[in-house]
Amino acid sequence: MSVVLAVAPHPDDETLGYGGTLLRHRAEGDQIHWLIVTAVSPEFGWSAQRMAERATAIDNMAADYSFASVTQLGLPTARLDTLPLSDLVATVAQVIETIRPDTVYTPHSGDVHSDHRLVFQAVAAATKTFRSPYVRRLLVCEIQSETDFAVQPDRLPFQPNVFVDITPYLSRKIALLSHFASEMGVFPFPRSAEAIRALAMCRGAQAGVAAAEAFMLLKEIR
Amino acid sequence: MSVVLAVAPHPDDETLGYGGTLLRHRAEGDQIHWLIVTAVSPEFGWSAQRMAERATAIDNMAADYSFASVTQLGLPTARLDTLPLSDLVATVAQVIETIRPDTVYTPHSGDVHSDHRLVFQAVAAATKTFRSPYVRRLLVCEIQSETDFAVQPDRLPFQPNVFVDITPYLSRKIALLSHFASEMGVFPFPRSAEAIRALAMCRGAQAGVAAAEAFMLLKEIR
Amino acid sequence: MSVVLAVAPHPDDETLGYGGTLLRHRAEGDQIHWLIVTAVSPEFGWSAQRMAERATAIDNMAADYSFASVTQLGLPTARLDTLPLSDLVATVAQVIETIRPDTVYTPHSGDVHSDHRLVFQAVAAATKTFRSPYVRRLLVCEIQSETDFAVQPDRLPFQPNVFVDITPYLSRKIALLSHFASEMGVFPFPRSAEAIRALAMCRGAQAGVAAAEAFMLLKEIR
Amino acid sequence: MSVVLAVAPHPDDETLGYGGTLLRHRAEGDQIHWLIVTAVSPEFGWSAQRMAERATAIDNMAADYSFASVTQLGLPTARLDTLPLSDLVATVAQVIETIRPDTVYTPHSGDVHSDHRLVFQAVAAATKTFRSPYVRRLLVCEIQSETDFAVQPDRLPFQPNVFVDITPYLSRKIALLSHFASEMGVFPFPRSAEAIRALAMCRGAQAGVAAAEAFMLLKEIR
Amino acid sequence: MSVVLAVAPHPDDETLGYGGTLLRHRAEGDQIHWLIVTAVSPEFGWSAQRMAERATAIDNMAADYSFASVTQLGLPTARLDTLPLSDLVATVAQVIETIRPDTVYTPHSGDVHSDHRLVFQAVAAATKTFRSPYVRRLLVCEIQSETDFAVQPDRLPFQPNVFVDITPYLSRKIALLSHFASEMGVFPFPRSAEAIRALAMCRGAQAGVAAAEAFMLLKEIR
Amino acid sequence: MSVVLAVAPHPDDETLGYGGTLLRHRAEGDQIHWLIVTAVSPEFGWSAQRMAERATAIDNMAADYSFASVTQLGLPTARLDTLPLSDLVATVAQVIETIRPDTVYTPHSGDVHSDHRLVFQAVAAATKTFRSPYVRRLLVCEIQSETDFAVQPDRLPFQPNVFVDITPYLSRKIALLSHFASEMGVFPFPRSAEAIRALAMCRGAQAGVAAAEAFMLLKEIR
Repeated sequence: MSVVLAVAPHPDDETLGYGGTLLRHRAEGDQIHWLIVTAVSPEFGWSAQRMAERATAIDNMAADYSFASVTQLGLPTARLDTLPLSDLVATVAQVIETIRPDTVYTPHSGDVHSDHRLVFQAVAAATKTFRSPYVRRLLVCEIQSETDFAVQPDRLPFQPNVFVDITPYLSRKIALLSHFASEMGVFPFPRSAEAIRALAMCRGAQAGVAAAEAFMLLKEIR
Repeated sequence: MSVVLAVAPHPDDETLGYGGTLLRHRAEGDQIHWLIVTAVSPEFGWSAQRMAERATAIDNMAADYSFASVTQLGLPTARLDTLPLSDLVATVAQVIETIRPDTVYTPHSGDVHSDHRLVFQAVAAATKTFRSPYVRRLLVCEIQSETDFAVQPDRLPFQPNVFVDITPYLSRKIALLSHFASEMGVFPFPRSAEAIRALAMCRGAQAGVAAAEAFMLLKEIR
Repeated sequence: MSVVLAVAPHPDDETLGYGGTLLRHRAEGDQIHWLIVTAVSPEFGWSAQRMAERATAIDNMAADYSFASVTQLGLPTARLDTLPLSDLVATVAQVIETIRPDTVYTPHSGDVHSDHRLVFQAVAAATKTFRSPYVRRLLVCEIQSETDFAVQPDRLPFQPNVFVDITPYLSRKIALLSHFASEMGVFPFPRSAEAIRALAMCRGAQAGVAAAEAFMLLKEIR
Repeated sequence: MSVVLAVAPHPDDETLGYGGTLLRHRAEGDQIHWLIVTAVSPEFGWSAQRMAERATAIDNMAADYSFASVTQLGLPTARLDTLPLSDLVATVAQVIETIRPDTVYTPHSGDVHSDHRLVFQAVAAATKTFRSPYVRRLLVCEIQSETDFAVQPDRLPFQPNVFVDITPYLSRKIALLSHFASEMGVFPFPRSAEAIRALAMCRGAQAGVAAAEAFMLLKEIR
Repeated sequence: MSVVLAVAPHPDDETLGYGGTLLRHRAEGDQIHWLIVTAVSPEFGWSAQRMAERATAIDNMAADYSFASVTQLGLPTARLDTLPLSDLVATVAQVIETIRPDTVYTPHSGDVHSDHRLVFQAVAAATKTFRSPYVRRLLVCEIQSETDFAVQPDRLPFQPNVFVDITPYLSRKIALLSHFASEMGVFPFPRSAEAIRALAMCRGAQAGVAAAEAFMLLKEIR
Repeated sequence: MSVVLAVAPHPDDETLGYGGTLLRHRAEGDQIHWLIVTAVSPEFGWSAQRMAERATAIDNMAADYSFASVTQLGLPTARLDTLPLSDLVATVAQVIETIRPDTVYTPHSGDVHSDHRLVFQAVAAATKTFRSPYVRRLLVCEIQSETDFAVQPDRLPFQPNVFVDITPYLSRKIALLSHFASEMGVFPFPRSAEAIRALAMCRGAQAGVAAAEAFMLLKEIR
């Protein structure tokens, strides 16, 4: 049995990036944990109603995945760059130390959203081998509307080397996103059922299966 | 009116890579030319019947696209690396000098097939600005089963910066590939209608349209 | 007619980077807009006199270019990293939403000055296709004393793929820089008439013209 | 049980690159196969005696590893670039089709020796997913005196993402190299016991173990 | 005689990264200067005793190296990202202006620790040629537990192009690290005598000497 | 005194790439050697007269530089890819073994001309440290019309890290090229006096001098 940590800057990132893989981990008996880094707050214009809806959505999502644990750091959305990075590292490291995952999924350091980039940096620092030797695999995912919209001229693009067959889980992945319906849109919007299905098919064609999610393996220790 | 040169190592590469874009060029009144670099021959085990079928397929494809010209260099398939590269450069340069295109599409230097890589090198050398100053745009395409299967650890991956809306042309692109039915397969095979449609949707989602083909612009002179 | 947005961290960046291209846009009947991100202030040691001179210089520059609009965000020079990036993104996005440009020029993410790097990040986030679908071309420029002085060992260097013939505009570009004479120096200082002319000639030689400005095209949608 | 294919341009490359990993595969009950691409011949100045010694060395090495099979393609050492690459691809593909490995180890495309580079290209082409869907993991290794001596200015360097703990196997790996004693030298020669041990310790320190071999994972399908 | 500036985010970085090279500079009559960017403070939980021990360690280290000068900027450890980068640039530039080094060593921009990354950015900005024309060589070093633990998917890895023979100085380098014994650990911890020795041997094997330190040369002016 | 080897695929490459640097080496008392890899021949259409003119040009060039030795390998121009690379390596290695240079200049592996790329590969293999430990510095140069015209989408571009002040030698460099007048053209042709001067000024502006040649240092051993 594997212990898996899903790091999401914002709830829905884990599902967009690797919801099928999480469902498969769960189906294969692995223990899966959810770490949500940011939260919304009235201070940035969220109404009490929308905040309640969002809390419910998180609860429902957690139940649907059967996460073994859900940790919400409650840091300010879209403002992680206003915090000392070392504080973010320490907080993420503490969660990792508690859960002791062998497999960690995290967003890409080149995503357009600065929260994604900083969460990556925190995970990278917190998973130095001598800090968390139990982490055996560290993978970054691709998130439509973020990874695919990166246009950094001085950076290497996302290029997957791990493909996970999610054929039996693709429909469920898409269904799960309805918990965060306000984040979804109408195709060709990248966070739409059609776009998600199309990407899964492209990644599948690269891997010889009907649907896949793709990752960059950053570190594996055997 | 633009004069467009479509460079294909093998017939069907142009359609897989940018058939929709060619159809759009044609629809918009541009003149499109087809350069097929290799040919098959009895020497490498092709029967007279299959060779005839292939010749017919090329004729039909040319008619369907209304190419202004079709040039077949007749070089040996899968064996371009046995020729002096400078001969390939000279031959390609001669075709370019005759057609004087302003826009050139070519396969990617990182494709798995060595023919693709060498055709790229020949086009790159033949389109040095002082040799063919009339070439104003040079673009490389992605070809499913080639570009997406590259696993070179020491090379930069394909990362598109040009997206062409081919929404009205996608079905026609897929239909055209039936001329080379033996090259096509059943999904998740990458050269299948479903995989081609999925990639067009992914590239479309990046560009805000229902279907797109993607390119790397290597050189534009304004 | 094209609607062009010139994004400058500090006034003079647009002229150093692509003054000739702006002049050509103007001459060809395009509408050009100027977005100046930062401002100087007494708080950081600027005297009233120098501030007035600078305001005059901006006015004169704007008049000489015949900018359709000039937007000054007034953010603190050399201190953009003290602001939440999401605020910068939101502010830039608002300007883009107002002007609705089809073409955007921006500094390079690898420039030595942190203001340049952050302005790039803001523009990249603000021009996600689904946010501003009217933006059809996004280009980064090279700015002497910034782009050419980058020494980042872990980043890809500036490598142009678009060359704009500015032969008729080079002298005017250099003349315009006299509005910000305090930023200019004596050759071999990189912001000098001789160095600017030399770079234009090098880029011209690559493009087959007497003088050119060079860009990296990050995104084009056709 | 895993079926592992060790691709070696020349015998000893597999041991230098991943001898410890092969020994561990064997100890864990996996089936390991050896593919030796090149051979020496009188034509290039090898005496009958040296050729016999080499044949014996290969036999002894094979026995010590308990390889399930040894395939020798017998292609000319240091002259793979004189063969059509498509022939090399076809030959390697045939071996892969026969053995049907799930895991393939191969040298790096950036190694100094052209044989290494071409063997990589052949393996990359032969392991396209739709050709050999049973290959689930493709990894490139680092070979001292080759990978570490690469100085290509236009290529990405070797950067490992997989670390295999070979602590119990390091001494045996070094002992095995005595079969090819003529290839070994005195430290600081890179093919020496001390240099091999030092690299294993460095890779171990990165992975939190006493000795490791490092790889780049190019493709994994789950 | 050369004037050398060793820039260390934290004391011990200079020794881990290039202690042998500094000792050799000293032995060859060069003048060596030490710039320590950060300091610890009670505010972040350091006891008076540990702070005193650290001050002593710095003094002892300085004496052992015979540094010509030691400059301590006293900025907060692990919190450089909370300062405006332009302030850090200005402070570092002032030190450089005072010392006027011809050779500068600095940590890598891709190190895991954000302090290292920001110190690099400050040094890069402060050593623009027109600011400090006396700087003739700028080099970045590798620091075990930092540079070797970087896993950035969108960045180029450390790839050395300068190798300095430190054979006579390796033992002394390791001995010097005992001044900061709390930072050291037991192998396979990367900051251990064995790991340091192993890396020196690997770099030595690349350079044909028994022990070497490796660098990336970013700029040399002759 | 330094012993310098200038490797030129074709005569004039050394002058275009680093003629000023060679003149400075000579002026500073270093010994400079010229290795010309290719030759022209009647077989590829060269008349006796043109061949004689070229021989004279080489003699005159050699005299003007006061080369300590000139080695002509006489390999077929534009056809190095028809030779086994290992033969080219062996031949180049023999020259290096004879001259025992401490400094080697060579063309870039990414140049458009395949001869340049193969000469680079041969020099890289021949200068492995354990083969030629006396080589202390290996540098690649930029050659106008080759390096600046590279458009490889999967390769890293030329990015200099060494700048050599050639202010006193620029005019002489340009004058020397008149020996190969047929290779030169009228600006904006890249091999023209104006383009060469412009590049030297750009590189100079980066280095704080009036004129410079730029290089990538690939290896230095101290």
